[in-house]
Amino acid sequence: MSTLTEISRQRSFGGWHAQYAYDSEALNSRTRFAIFLPPGASQANPVPVLYWLSGLTCTDENFMQKAAAQRVAAELGLAIVAPDTSPRGEDVADNHDYDLGQGAGFYLNATEPPWQAHYQMERFVTEELPARIEAHFPVTDRRAIAGHSMGGHGALVLSLRHPGRYRSVSAFSPITHPVAVPWGQKAFSAYLGADRDRWQQYDAACLMRKATPDQHCPTLVSQGLADEFLNSQLQPWHLTEAAGHSGYPLTLEQHPDYDHSYYFIASFIEQHLRFHQEVLSA
Amino acid sequence: MSTLTEISRQRSFGGWHAQYAYDSEALNSRTRFAIFLPPGASQANPVPVLYWLSGLTCTDENFMQKAAAQRVAAELGLAIVAPDTSPRGEDVADNHDYDLGQGAGFYLNATEPPWQAHYQMERFVTEELPARIEAHFPVTDRRAIAGHSMGGHGALVLSLRHPGRYRSVSAFSPITHPVAVPWGQKAFSAYLGADRDRWQQYDAACLMRKATPDQHCPTLVSQGLADEFLNSQLQPWHLTEAAGHSGYPLTLEQHPDYDHSYYFIASFIEQHLRFHQEVLSA
Repeated sequence: MSTLTEISRQRSFGGWHAQYAYDSEALNSRTRFAIFLPPGASQANPVPVLYWLSGLTCTDENFMQKAAAQRVAAELGLAIVAPDTSPRGEDVADNHDYDLGQGAGFYLNATEPPWQAHYQMERFVTEELPARIEAHFPVTDRRAIAGHSMGGHGALVLSLRHPGRYRSVSAFSPITHPVAVPWGQKAFSAYLGADRDRWQQYDAACLMRKATPDQHCPTLVSQGLADEFLNSQLQPWHLTEAAGHSGYPLTLEQHPDYDHSYYFIASFIEQHLRFHQEVLSA
Repeated sequence: MSTLTEISRQRSFGGWHAQYAYDSEALNSRTRFAIFLPPGASQANPVPVLYWLSGLTCTDENFMQKAAAQRVAAELGLAIVAPDTSPRGEDVADNHDYDLGQGAGFYLNATEPPWQAHYQMERFVTEELPARIEAHFPVTDRRAIAGHSMGGHGALVLSLRHPGRYRSVSAFSPITHPVAVPWGQKAFSAYLGADRDRWQQYDAACLMRKATPDQHCPTLVSQGLADEFLNSQLQPWHLTEAAGHSGYPLTLEQHPDYDHSYYFIASFIEQHLRFHQEVLSA
């Protein structure tokens, strides 16, 4: 395994926030992630980890700077890891649109050229990165996953596709049914090709509708009702319908007046972290 | 008075965060500020205001996005106003250095060309902006002031220069003795000219050392001991010496391992807000 290089390090709520870079095999490129370690985390006292997946155009920095999560994570003894949202680099395929290419990895394994050479985000997030984290930091293999918008889609889909890998999942403003909305259709066409059966394998509503009990994972979704993408891209009613169909343990909370921004995430991140901690500590 | 134009508006912790622009007479330019209004603030229930002054290169956005202040301000019923750190615009004097010109107003009234035409930040912060805020929003005239780095300098100096205008003052990592450090010397030379007697009128350590009881204002200063600017630019020991000399009510807390970043501010902003609220509600 290539060396982890520390990029930055800051004391935060008695714990530490840091950024690291390393050469990712899954992404075939150098990648960067951020980690928050709560006070008291040590080899003798390893802590569970929440993986946070950010939305379109984000990096490993947005959540750590804007979500106000560290206070509660410090209190609960929870580590948080925030990967970048796609592979990066001059030799990595890109597109001038904000919603395709670098900054828009959609947390899947691409099968189509030119994307498949680097865009193996599912393998990166579910396998390679946790192995790194668990080898290098004082954490357990108790994992939770959460995200926002494109990252909310990622959290829901990766939890459903990897039963048992995560003990709890939550999402803010997720893309719930990407096969049916412009962001998803554009990304899936490029990364997965024309076969819509493949698309459904990365669609939270489709997966949740068919979920069997071994795929059930405690799930909390928060949606702002003044979200500018609510009807065009997010469509949370697909989750409600899917969960009702399969008996999936979904809690969907809708909040009047809140929008798609980190001001919304910050307002409810404490609730999400306490939800995860309750499951992780059970 | 020119009209306030709303630029953005987000629900946050049951209250509202918003940005506004207007044509400032003091700055002779269009300016922008951000405001957080806690839940329940109304004409029938006006709330006190904390003015936050940001550091070099910042705008009205840094504090609202990164300080994690809204949760506690919502609980305490405290409004927060964050102005920009300088006048802005194509016709406003500037310098290619990050520590002079736009983004580096230093919260003083400039006397020297070309700066004096727009750089009237003291008048803007202490008079014009509060008059606007108190006319347009459900707030009282109970004011507190706080800031970071250059803004910590601003908060301390404006409180000392305007006795009675603020009920409490706090600072993170302030420039305490600008007449003696590179950031201050560069800015004061440009904005105030060569006369060092004038400089001392905007120097917290000099003002605090001579402070009379009518200038005393409850003051909390937090300083990280891993701050990369601690010895070169901040030098908090000047405040301790000055307060000891004049009997000024200063509390200076030093925190091992914390740096100059918003990760430090976020870690201790709750303490600062509760400090202000205790004085404001007395």
